[in-house]
Amino acid sequence: MTSLVSDPIGEQAPQVLPGSSSRLADHTTPLVRNEWYVAAMSDELDRTLRERWLLGAGVLLYRTTDGTAVALQNRCPHRSFPLSRGVLEGDNVVCGYHGLTFGPDGACVLIPSQDTIPKGVRARRFPVVERPPLVWIWMGDPDQADPTRIPDSSWLSDPDYGAVCGYLHVKSSYVRLHENVLDHTHFPFLHGVEVSDVDWSQAPFEVTQEGNSACITRVLKDHPVDPVFGRAIRNSGHRVTRTSTAWFKTPAVHWATETIEDLEGGVDERTEFHFQILHMFTPETATTTHYFWAVARDVAIQDALLEAGRRVTVATFEQDAEALELIEENWRREDGIREVSLTSDRVGLLMRQIIAQRALDEAAPA
Amino acid sequence: MTSLVSDPIGEQAPQVLPGSSSRLADHTTPLVRNEWYVAAMSDELDRTLRERWLLGAGVLLYRTTDGTAVALQNRCPHRSFPLSRGVLEGDNVVCGYHGLTFGPDGACVLIPSQDTIPKGVRARRFPVVERPPLVWIWMGDPDQADPTRIPDSSWLSDPDYGAVCGYLHVKSSYVRLHENVLDHTHFPFLHGVEVSDVDWSQAPFEVTQEGNSACITRVLKDHPVDPVFGRAIRNSGHRVTRTSTAWFKTPAVHWATETIEDLEGGVDERTEFHFQILHMFTPETATTTHYFWAVARDVAIQDALLEAGRRVTVATFEQDAEALELIEENWRREDGIREVSLTSDRVGLLMRQIIAQRALDEAAPA
Amino acid sequence: MTSLVSDPIGEQAPQVLPGSSSRLADHTTPLVRNEWYVAAMSDELDRTLRERWLLGAGVLLYRTTDGTAVALQNRCPHRSFPLSRGVLEGDNVVCGYHGLTFGPDGACVLIPSQDTIPKGVRARRFPVVERPPLVWIWMGDPDQADPTRIPDSSWLSDPDYGAVCGYLHVKSSYVRLHENVLDHTHFPFLHGVEVSDVDWSQAPFEVTQEGNSACITRVLKDHPVDPVFGRAIRNSGHRVTRTSTAWFKTPAVHWATETIEDLEGGVDERTEFHFQILHMFTPETATTTHYFWAVARDVAIQDALLEAGRRVTVATFEQDAEALELIEENWRREDGIREVSLTSDRVGLLMRQIIAQRALDEAAPA
Repeated sequence: MTSLVSDPIGEQAPQVLPGSSSRLADHTTPLVRNEWYVAAMSDELDRTLRERWLLGAGVLLYRTTDGTAVALQNRCPHRSFPLSRGVLEGDNVVCGYHGLTFGPDGACVLIPSQDTIPKGVRARRFPVVERPPLVWIWMGDPDQADPTRIPDSSWLSDPDYGAVCGYLHVKSSYVRLHENVLDHTHFPFLHGVEVSDVDWSQAPFEVTQEGNSACITRVLKDHPVDPVFGRAIRNSGHRVTRTSTAWFKTPAVHWATETIEDLEGGVDERTEFHFQILHMFTPETATTTHYFWAVARDVAIQDALLEAGRRVTVATFEQDAEALELIEENWRREDGIREVSLTSDRVGLLMRQIIAQRALDEAAPA
Repeated sequence: MTSLVSDPIGEQAPQVLPGSSSRLADHTTPLVRNEWYVAAMSDELDRTLRERWLLGAGVLLYRTTDGTAVALQNRCPHRSFPLSRGVLEGDNVVCGYHGLTFGPDGACVLIPSQDTIPKGVRARRFPVVERPPLVWIWMGDPDQADPTRIPDSSWLSDPDYGAVCGYLHVKSSYVRLHENVLDHTHFPFLHGVEVSDVDWSQAPFEVTQEGNSACITRVLKDHPVDPVFGRAIRNSGHRVTRTSTAWFKTPAVHWATETIEDLEGGVDERTEFHFQILHMFTPETATTTHYFWAVARDVAIQDALLEAGRRVTVATFEQDAEALELIEENWRREDGIREVSLTSDRVGLLMRQIIAQRALDEAAPA
Repeated sequence: MTSLVSDPIGEQAPQVLPGSSSRLADHTTPLVRNEWYVAAMSDELDRTLRERWLLGAGVLLYRTTDGTAVALQNRCPHRSFPLSRGVLEGDNVVCGYHGLTFGPDGACVLIPSQDTIPKGVRARRFPVVERPPLVWIWMGDPDQADPTRIPDSSWLSDPDYGAVCGYLHVKSSYVRLHENVLDHTHFPFLHGVEVSDVDWSQAPFEVTQEGNSACITRVLKDHPVDPVFGRAIRNSGHRVTRTSTAWFKTPAVHWATETIEDLEGGVDERTEFHFQILHMFTPETATTTHYFWAVARDVAIQDALLEAGRRVTVATFEQDAEALELIEENWRREDGIREVSLTSDRVGLLMRQIIAQRALDEAAPA
């Protein structure tokens, strides 16, 4: 693990050049395909044929009779009719245009108008792994689809935690969404001092890199608890030490944690409280993103309290989405934009280097 | 006449390459211009100035005082104001911007602000031939506008037949619309077994080519009459032989026939019944089409029965339109699509070769 | 001053070639940036942060506490969040994303997350000069922003005149808007003979050029007053001499005058009446324009009469806007358009040469 101390980058701040291909990823960078992305929440899938556009491709999602989640290209290989407009017959999909029928592995099993099935007639199958409440998909080279690479989310069903989930469609590049959640310093300004005091954006931080992941850890010691946390923990007004990590795990997943250590006796004989947030960004196109999220905490996990927390979370993430859509729109309308970066952007720039490099590697001939 | 026996093309199926320019026409192929297309139904035109976009050009349509249909470019040659927003003065069109006045031959006859009319000031006139209920237009080289090339539709006014007409605007390439009507095998799946039993999509067929036309003839012998035909003929349940032809006449016109030979005594001492369908596809742009149609039959021609038939036809053609729009949308959203073709596609591929070759010929220097 | 006598240009009429870069400006010509454009009417600006897109750039407009109008780029230089979504703190703008704070000169005065402010962090400031009721902006090279180049509009507050102002958003290139107001001959056809008799479009005219300005002067002698003017002056039916000038001052400003000399005794012992119209065209993009206008006259200046006049003016300018939008739309939809020009277009072609040359000069390396 490499540790980068925080340092002001000032005038040497790297600038984001539009269309820069290799250095820093942006909305023009080819999407990273060899990765597990969230295709859907488990409860979205059933025996209905559903269409979702993922990484620029139409994908058909459904469950077989035994409940297995299936993902096929949502175009009949014959004349590109969306298979989602056909019907399920057992585990097979019958195209609504000419009746071509495909098994859950994508193989064509019936062409009503002829006896032989030419070998080339098959729907592309995308590897799928379900880890409830998440359904993961691999849109890249199937030979590299190793399920052990799926980020761990088992804590989502940890009985000590209460979790809530949600989804937003965002008209912004997934790169910007990643940069936003790696960036603690926007919290007091975009979300308000209810969520993080301004002091927090000035607190010392450390950036670490581990392979193709990058993490920022920020600690604010001995400070009044921020109102949002105080209300959940019921320790409003207490002084606490807040430790926040924001971790770019993969181009598909960002994992954030908040640890609140109560310095004034705590609540119900506990002094440490944990919040975990999984941000799952699945590009729909280069400039639009499926944003799945899950938030879990080991305090105030009664249903009514979780529901109150969910509403705060939704409001907060909608602020992020709106901000990033405004930014994407500015980039769309104006030519020749150059941006400057600040000290706190170091981890975001690291993430953008990693994504850019992975995109470059994928484009390289094998 | 060349006869191609039907044969499975299986693994050797030609694939449609995106942007393929010369082999198989698709939505990227330049439109064939040297052809008679339907500009309007006769009853659409009167003394009103109407605009319709045909083959990527704005066209002004109206009738002179003696009822002659006229088609001019719908842009004043001076500053491109749409002439349809001007007024008719007798047979002449007065531009609503500067009062330039054009005769039905496109010649400028008045420029209010000056005495002389420079020779270059003229609106392009498009050759028009009316064969009620159809108004044909020639958007290509006017020297080649030979009216004898207009496909025969005189049977539309044959007193033994009852006919109904209609129009759909379809957000799909005319090439796909042609391919769809040459393809019998989608009938049971897209339109339902009311229209054609699945057996029919497996019936033997023959493909023939005559110059730049292509035809498929399909015969299903000794089979229960399909419900739609049985209801019109009132021979439901009878065994019949159904002979279907689907004929790509020109890039503008597809002519289909259905002949039902009743093998169980017939109705009212008749045993043979005929249905004719004229599909007239006029590109609005490369990916949108004006779809005019006319259906005639020599049975059940009373007004109420024709109206019932018309409603079935509209519902059927709307299914086609919706399917082709979904397909066009898939092509628009997804890059690098490749399709595979089946045995039954032979006539469609032949049509696409013909259109591609004609487009290529038009692009060649004279 | 060069004087060009009017002469028919007939078959030698220059043709507008699509995409012609150097000869005649059109909607494809790069926008002229080194010029004062109207950014807003004075009464639009206050202590609210407002966004307006000018010459393809998002601009933030507001007033400081002392009322000075300010224009900054409406993108935070850090991550392109629109500053108009932030808040004013005194004279400074606080970005709503990370709290970066900018003075009215664009300098960054605060970055909450760090102590030092790197030199590159600044919002571009655009020179602004207010000449009520107009606020002028300079979007080009700031070193050339000489306020003496702002066209005079002091007559707008001449007490002998009554003035009304207005605004239209027009989906058309500013080049077309300029050409339209230089062209008297469309008045009787687009606006009706209430505004100008057809004789007027045939009246003799003179075209003059002065540096990068061009003017057409048209005189119709001893002719019944046009109804619109007769109603304002209350000399309906009198014979008058009408002198009209239409002056392309800069790519931002067209100044028109109408002088009506009453030949039958006049009204209230006056025989000469003046109308002045300022058309101010500020490109939003290459094909959309902010159209500010002001009309003043030295007759019928009571409020109720001015209001009646304003309504006529609005209706007239909306006719212009609709016509130019239809034309822009034709150019957008149809390829390969060529236009022919008439004798009366000479001044418009001169204007298009001037704009094209200025765009070319700006593109040239210094």
